[in-house]
Amino acid sequence: MESSNGERPPQGEDAAAAAAAAAGSIGGYESLHRLLESNLSPELFKEASRLLLGLNCGRALEAISLPESTSILAKAHNFDVQAFRFDADKEYLRQPRVVRVGLIQNSIAIPTTSHFADQKKAIMEKVKPMIDAAGDAGVNILCLQEAWTMPFAFCTREKRWCEFAESVDGESTQFLQQLAKKYNMVIVSPILERDVNHGEIVWNTAVVIGNHGNIIGIHRKNHIPRVGDFNESTYYMEGNTGHPVFETAYGKIGVNICYGRHHPLNWLAFGLNGAEIVFNPSATVGELSEPMWPIEARNAAIANSYFVGSINRVGTEVFPNPFTSGDGKPQHADFGHFYGSSHFSAPDASCTPSLSRYRDGLMISDMDLNLCRQIKDKWGFRMTARYDTYASLLSEYLKPDFKPQVIVDPLINKSV
Amino acid sequence: MESSNGERPPQGEDAAAAAAAAAGSIGGYESLHRLLESNLSPELFKEASRLLLGLNCGRALEAISLPESTSILAKAHNFDVQAFRFDADKEYLRQPRVVRVGLIQNSIAIPTTSHFADQKKAIMEKVKPMIDAAGDAGVNILCLQEAWTMPFAFCTREKRWCEFAESVDGESTQFLQQLAKKYNMVIVSPILERDVNHGEIVWNTAVVIGNHGNIIGIHRKNHIPRVGDFNESTYYMEGNTGHPVFETAYGKIGVNICYGRHHPLNWLAFGLNGAEIVFNPSATVGELSEPMWPIEARNAAIANSYFVGSINRVGTEVFPNPFTSGDGKPQHADFGHFYGSSHFSAPDASCTPSLSRYRDGLMISDMDLNLCRQIKDKWGFRMTARYDTYASLLSEYLKPDFKPQVIVDPLINKSV
Repeated sequence: MESSNGERPPQGEDAAAAAAAAAGSIGGYESLHRLLESNLSPELFKEASRLLLGLNCGRALEAISLPESTSILAKAHNFDVQAFRFDADKEYLRQPRVVRVGLIQNSIAIPTTSHFADQKKAIMEKVKPMIDAAGDAGVNILCLQEAWTMPFAFCTREKRWCEFAESVDGESTQFLQQLAKKYNMVIVSPILERDVNHGEIVWNTAVVIGNHGNIIGIHRKNHIPRVGDFNESTYYMEGNTGHPVFETAYGKIGVNICYGRHHPLNWLAFGLNGAEIVFNPSATVGELSEPMWPIEARNAAIANSYFVGSINRVGTEVFPNPFTSGDGKPQHADFGHFYGSSHFSAPDASCTPSLSRYRDGLMISDMDLNLCRQIKDKWGFRMTARYDTYASLLSEYLKPDFKPQVIVDPLINKSV
Repeated sequence: MESSNGERPPQGEDAAAAAAAAAGSIGGYESLHRLLESNLSPELFKEASRLLLGLNCGRALEAISLPESTSILAKAHNFDVQAFRFDADKEYLRQPRVVRVGLIQNSIAIPTTSHFADQKKAIMEKVKPMIDAAGDAGVNILCLQEAWTMPFAFCTREKRWCEFAESVDGESTQFLQQLAKKYNMVIVSPILERDVNHGEIVWNTAVVIGNHGNIIGIHRKNHIPRVGDFNESTYYMEGNTGHPVFETAYGKIGVNICYGRHHPLNWLAFGLNGAEIVFNPSATVGELSEPMWPIEARNAAIANSYFVGSINRVGTEVFPNPFTSGDGKPQHADFGHFYGSSHFSAPDASCTPSLSRYRDGLMISDMDLNLCRQIKDKWGFRMTARYDTYASLLSEYLKPDFKPQVIVDPLINKSV
């Protein structure tokens, strides 16, 4: 099966291992970082990394060591694990607030032609050892990928996939509540939600589960794409939960679901509400968005002085019935290659390398949340933002008779 | 003279040539792009470029050839010239609107201890052949760097440097008006402005000169930094000209001066007013901002569906009187290394390589402005932006008693 962008992605776990082995060769390299690491001298790689990972001011991004059980799980279940530490300056009046945060990316587990119940069960069984690995590694806050309980079937426009929608307190939440309690871990669970109290409509929702296994609250995706095969506007509407920040035992977190990452105002709103970490659980494919992927999350972290955890699913999902894509090309049955590449971005403009473009993975980072306020004080973006100007402009812009501020050259039509 | 970030930048044109020759070695490489080009196999370099320059969907970024006179000027005056073309799809109902746009980056010309009149004259003489090269190359719209007529002396906090401020129709404008007319070229000229009709106060201003040599209008820098040695708030206040878009003979342009690039709302406002190209004339140093530099402009181009031209001056400027930097370190007399790296970003997430980190340079790009609307239609960011939500939020946020939307875990203090 060839994906729509001409890549020939490996299928299944054996192929993923083969792809990992082939890292460094075109089409099979695990990540840009690993491609450069394998092919540049250590000195040049260090300099390229300084620019690419934003490591400046003498700060190094250090790898952190994890317990053996995490490595054993990763090996047994063939997923990538990477772990790094973002540092902050020591303060006189506050203790460091170091939090260990995890991101999980995964492909689906069995073909999309299988019984829906089996598909969901298989994904849960596949993700469980990754959550166990995070728990063993002492992760405090963990986020899963967008609509993690299902294939990303919105390319099909078939409504049968709505069967995967669950109540906020449904099967997947109950599954994760046990694990949250077991590992004393906050878990963010992005699912397709069935809103039973409002006409059984469907939302794209993140359920935030506290470290005692309680449901703290939900956030519904604010911005819905109409691009490529992302026919999500066929399935659910723009969220009605605002931009909540969840004050958990380990820090203040927000969730900017998928396409919301293209909207700087969406990122801003979580910042204005006080987020210290914003997760961006996503499902996005190579041909469409890969060049944007390393840019938008880092920009959000810089502009809003918070950490960002970006997650994208991996693999190619093939559906039972072929569909066209509004691009004049023949019908096909896959959504293209979900390129993984989950990573963290920090408010000081640094970031971690990315997880594999092909394999399941767990990315862990220790982050001292004190860095957020340190960067606010250093750069002063909030202080210099002139929000009054923009509140006025947006209010004006909303009026049907809005006139843009344009200064026309009076000689525009004069010949030379 | 060692700059504050430990790099030993070349001084003057001979040293710049030496640095160019040393491209590929650490500290002397011209740009990340050239570092990778020199050290990766062609196949791997192509793949790294695809990701780094955002070249997807099979689109290549093609170099364009320039007239011999441009190359002769570049060689004679030792500046870097690079030229690329961004493509757009053919449309049925509109002709392509290809505009040739240029960016100039340069170091100062003679020591900052020289007579002020001599310094300004020397910079103008230095920049003139670069403008001639742009004119010979058929550039339609050209932008110079921030405060291009002077050293970036705001690190000193000495008010004597205000003498470099000029009226909007002052010496530098008159100089450029002749060249604009000669080459039928729009020129954006960022200067320190003396506002003679308002108490002789000083602004950081871009003067937009039409292709007939007329002054179309001005824009004053909206956001003023208070970070590192950027003591600009000592010299001038936040601009009072809004976010004007200038409708020129060649397209609708805006100017986001320097620190404004850290403010997504500032970029947004130029977009809402209809800009197709936004210039970001800057002066920024390595230790502070280099990791942010490739991120923010590209994000702005993506988020707002317009082209961005980013310019940063080059070299290390040493001042007559040493000063401290509020970082506990001893006094020193330089502002650190201005790392050049001027480049263009496109709305489809692609970008050009960057000009040299050390040498003067002229970056040229052909861009079909039709791409802006094509990307708006494809991605729908304007349509899905929900500006009403954010107008309300910002209005609320401005109130002193604003309460952030925070959902507190009720079990936050419960022990495990």
